[in-house]
Amino acid sequence: MTIHPAWLPPSTFHFLTGKRFLIDSDHPLAGTVREELLRAGCGPAAPGTSADLTFTVVPSTTLSSPSIGVGDGDGFTLTGSGVEADGPRGLIYGLFELARGGLPGRYEPAFTRRMIDHWDNVDVHPVMGQVERGYSGGSIFWKDGVFLGSSPDGLKRIRTYARLLAAAGINAVTVNNVNVHRTEARLLTDRRGEVAVIADQFRRYGIVTHLSVNFAAPVILGDLPTADPLDPRVQQWWAATSAQLVSDIADFGGYLVKADSEGQPGPFTYGRSHAEGANMLAAALTSRLVPSLGALRTPGPVVHWRAFVYDHRQDWRDRTTDRARAAYDHFAPLDGLFADNVIVQVKHGPIDFQPREPLSPVLTAMPRTRLAVELQATQEYTGQQRHVCYLAPMWSEVLAQVDGEMATVANTGDDIYWTGHPLAQANLYAAGRLAWNPDPIAVLDEWIDLTFPRAPSRLRSILHELMDTSLLTYEQYTAPLGVGFMVRPGHHYGPDVDGYEYTPWGTYHFADRDGVGVDRTSATGTAFAAQYPHTWYESPATCPDELLLFFHHVPYTHVLHSGTTVIQHIYDTHFEGATRVESMRDLWRSAAALVDPDLHARVAARLDEQVRSATEWRDQINAYFHRKSGIPDAHGRRIH
Amino acid sequence: MTIHPAWLPPSTFHFLTGKRFLIDSDHPLAGTVREELLRAGCGPAAPGTSADLTFTVVPSTTLSSPSIGVGDGDGFTLTGSGVEADGPRGLIYGLFELARGGLPGRYEPAFTRRMIDHWDNVDVHPVMGQVERGYSGGSIFWKDGVFLGSSPDGLKRIRTYARLLAAAGINAVTVNNVNVHRTEARLLTDRRGEVAVIADQFRRYGIVTHLSVNFAAPVILGDLPTADPLDPRVQQWWAATSAQLVSDIADFGGYLVKADSEGQPGPFTYGRSHAEGANMLAAALTSRLVPSLGALRTPGPVVHWRAFVYDHRQDWRDRTTDRARAAYDHFAPLDGLFADNVIVQVKHGPIDFQPREPLSPVLTAMPRTRLAVELQATQEYTGQQRHVCYLAPMWSEVLAQVDGEMATVANTGDDIYWTGHPLAQANLYAAGRLAWNPDPIAVLDEWIDLTFPRAPSRLRSILHELMDTSLLTYEQYTAPLGVGFMVRPGHHYGPDVDGYEYTPWGTYHFADRDGVGVDRTSATGTAFAAQYPHTWYESPATCPDELLLFFHHVPYTHVLHSGTTVIQHIYDTHFEGATRVESMRDLWRSAAALVDPDLHARVAARLDEQVRSATEWRDQINAYFHRKSGIPDAHGRRIH
Repeated sequence: MTIHPAWLPPSTFHFLTGKRFLIDSDHPLAGTVREELLRAGCGPAAPGTSADLTFTVVPSTTLSSPSIGVGDGDGFTLTGSGVEADGPRGLIYGLFELARGGLPGRYEPAFTRRMIDHWDNVDVHPVMGQVERGYSGGSIFWKDGVFLGSSPDGLKRIRTYARLLAAAGINAVTVNNVNVHRTEARLLTDRRGEVAVIADQFRRYGIVTHLSVNFAAPVILGDLPTADPLDPRVQQWWAATSAQLVSDIADFGGYLVKADSEGQPGPFTYGRSHAEGANMLAAALTSRLVPSLGALRTPGPVVHWRAFVYDHRQDWRDRTTDRARAAYDHFAPLDGLFADNVIVQVKHGPIDFQPREPLSPVLTAMPRTRLAVELQATQEYTGQQRHVCYLAPMWSEVLAQVDGEMATVANTGDDIYWTGHPLAQANLYAAGRLAWNPDPIAVLDEWIDLTFPRAPSRLRSILHELMDTSLLTYEQYTAPLGVGFMVRPGHHYGPDVDGYEYTPWGTYHFADRDGVGVDRTSATGTAFAAQYPHTWYESPATCPDELLLFFHHVPYTHVLHSGTTVIQHIYDTHFEGATRVESMRDLWRSAAALVDPDLHARVAARLDEQVRSATEWRDQINAYFHRKSGIPDAHGRRIH
Repeated sequence: MTIHPAWLPPSTFHFLTGKRFLIDSDHPLAGTVREELLRAGCGPAAPGTSADLTFTVVPSTTLSSPSIGVGDGDGFTLTGSGVEADGPRGLIYGLFELARGGLPGRYEPAFTRRMIDHWDNVDVHPVMGQVERGYSGGSIFWKDGVFLGSSPDGLKRIRTYARLLAAAGINAVTVNNVNVHRTEARLLTDRRGEVAVIADQFRRYGIVTHLSVNFAAPVILGDLPTADPLDPRVQQWWAATSAQLVSDIADFGGYLVKADSEGQPGPFTYGRSHAEGANMLAAALTSRLVPSLGALRTPGPVVHWRAFVYDHRQDWRDRTTDRARAAYDHFAPLDGLFADNVIVQVKHGPIDFQPREPLSPVLTAMPRTRLAVELQATQEYTGQQRHVCYLAPMWSEVLAQVDGEMATVANTGDDIYWTGHPLAQANLYAAGRLAWNPDPIAVLDEWIDLTFPRAPSRLRSILHELMDTSLLTYEQYTAPLGVGFMVRPGHHYGPDVDGYEYTPWGTYHFADRDGVGVDRTSATGTAFAAQYPHTWYESPATCPDELLLFFHHVPYTHVLHSGTTVIQHIYDTHFEGATRVESMRDLWRSAAALVDPDLHARVAARLDEQVRSATEWRDQINAYFHRKSGIPDAHGRRIH
């Protein structure tokens, strides 16, 4: 089978066919636009004749200093007769917007850097596999330690991927897992040629390549006795290593670092702060900074430093330590101490990509620090690309409250549909497009129209109905009211209410025979709620229902704002959620004649699994709380 | 470091040194006895002079037909001036009994075949490793697919192992895992030469070699379209294959089969019964039976057919299916239908090697079938050779109720102490010696005296105190009152009260806010209790406390025969069990000067882990039941 074209089917540029174009730029990206137009059956306007489509770069007067961001110049205007781009990358985005039938007007992204973070390993990790939390087969970059970009097919697949990302408005990619093992560490040194080959492909579509590095690289790769960021030998090693990388990859994006987190090394080992660690790498990257790349105005490489730092060896008996507090406690005091080219990358919620979390308080607590919000397209805790779960509605709520940069953990692999579940493509698409259009439902419909061109309206409405509220449905049949983490340890798929309850991971629900939830109030709990500038979360009276158990331990008989008790809410939502999944399966079956049979079969098989899984979630959660509370369902439904 | 000599230290035969011996047998095993005596510094009595020690074979008049068993002739008499053996193997056992200082008298085993079942893989299994449930390093037979018996060192280790087993009274070994994967299946065909090399070593010590086979071997290895036991092609394939094996290994012991169990293939696939499956293999083994091996009187190869058959994809919601019933339901109706050379091998309890189970009712329900009781020295559910847990007291209770054969899952590997935990050697020793001496405490003291020769009495009493009630201590801090299976799924180490509660594995405790336990009564439960010829288990009034929750679901406030409530019993035993482990650690620390420092350090490190683990068990079990019952500890101790 051929690889699915996702949102760039062969018909993408059909309505441009035959048009005459003029491109007023000699930037390499203008060459990419030209290639796309020629492939679409357009031709250059003959000299002296008028063009149907004109592509020009008209630099904005507001263009930025290097400290502001890589995304400046990504905006463009559709003039009705072509594209006026702020910079070369805007030519590409304008072209794809034309293909989508964009109306004349101004287009610009709300987030300067729109990054995809791959969790791909070079070697197969014995537990995590080729792609950590990868639900789409293997990596498109490496297989069993071998670089796939060395083969023409592999190179072509990377280029095809770059084109898809560009069409979604993505402009940066980190190519490897933040957990950097020994082999992967070498991408920084003797295997950097592989990164350069990938970067060559991405560059053709305006995408900058970044690399995850291991903070202990000077020890692992450099034979130094220390990785202390204040040690001059360490600084020199990083500077020399970075200079070589930047020499090979002139527009190298920079480093992504998971330090002092879940066993990864970091500055804490040496009694240094995260600012000291990050700033050392930032200095190394800029110490021999190459001249800016002309019109791309690359502001130089940066360090993305993840704020995902917490004690993963907590004693479950200790009710004072709260993992939710950790990122803020570690990073908020460092506000203002990071170098200009350090970006602190913060998961959107305080825990870890659960279906429902409050916004991480770090995201509004560091006004003097460049921040990136981290989203997760790989659905680790939201159905692992076996369940339909369109995440953009949650993401758009997050993005409405932050600015700066966004980084999304990839959900792609060597699967012929790219994402395992064909409908999970929409999450990758939204990971870029939400920066340009904050309306998740508009983005969904856009994705449907592009991916299923000339589909009957019945199919479009079925897809819309399947996907638009799919996250809410997922939330209904899984952990209730924001309490999270009732998943099977290790693989994180399927229910296990107590699976993490007595573990060192800091993710508890504290259910007993009387009630459930985590007291994070200032008055009687861990005071996580005080990390917010407002006091909504301090009281059940003002806490939203859907976050109640994230912030409060309440009796099962507590009455929600909705008017039902907590226990009855658990029963009701779990019955309803599972029923909704059954309806989704029926709905999709009714679309059998409307869609490619292979794609239909793939989605149908996954919906069968989603029904099985949702039923299992419903029954385990309901049975668990029924056994514990002893309270029967008000509607007399059977609880096992 | 050199390999630990276990219960055969260099001093083993010291008090025989200088003795003159006469051996009145030309059997190869007499040659082994001669070698041992020469190595011990004995010499043959000169012709015409009287010997200090005389070894003769005096066949008993009761010697058996082939259908009775391989172990006939294993008995012997110590005359005061040597050994009068019933058969050649008795010479070996008599020699080792002399070394133990055995008094004049008659010695014979209560179980004819005393087998060790290795769960060794040839290849490393991706999840289970080189040895399934192996807690002693790798296999002594294979490493990463390579046969270790090809090297002199590897061969020597196997021979050393055979000598240890013979000294413990073992006379049969199955060399590979009952879960027979693709590579392991080939031990039956093109890799059978490896089995022959192992058999050559074991034979020197009177040990017969058996092989685990895959019931689907005709499909996997033979290119047949079926493994239907009634298909003539299948019968012919097995007959031809078995004939080759018996031709290469004249005293080949036979096959061990795990059929229709946990995903292994079996006769059910073809609509055949287990009797039909087993009998087909039995016929294949005897169809070209080689002549019996003279004085060894090997009665021909046999099939060990495991009764461990149950539905491992049970719906946890289904309270009528009961895994405990499965072996009886499958096998009791087949009594009398198995061929003479089929031995049905039955786990000693109805579930799976929990610290406390009733005797499997199968063991008393098949009078017309040869049975073997299966024990487990590898401590899968009893501390995994990290915890001190001397199992012989439990085994001796089982053995007192059965006869025939015994088979014990090995706990040995390529560890320098053979068993990971040095004190776990005692379990392997008891797996043989209990057949000769039913008193587990006498066997323990015997093991201590042999393994720590010339030890001060203080050390001997410390070892005794550490080990004699260690299983009771383990039971105290783990799952209460026989309910079992509160372990972490997969690896089965450490507590996870609900770990298996909502899984397909059929191992549940059904705890709710009011009570806990499995109702297996005839009146209101699964009627497993009716599989026994007596009615003790039907009522809490007659059910022993320690099995109460195996048979009954009772309120937490139920008063035990001991006078305490179930909930208070849970608290009391868990506090006490963990405290006892702390005392064990202190006791061992006090032995530091009395024992080899390396061995002391190994045991000390494992006791540290046992203290940590027992504390974790105590706190998780107590917290779980406290949260569920809401009943405080009567003694006011802190429960987390």
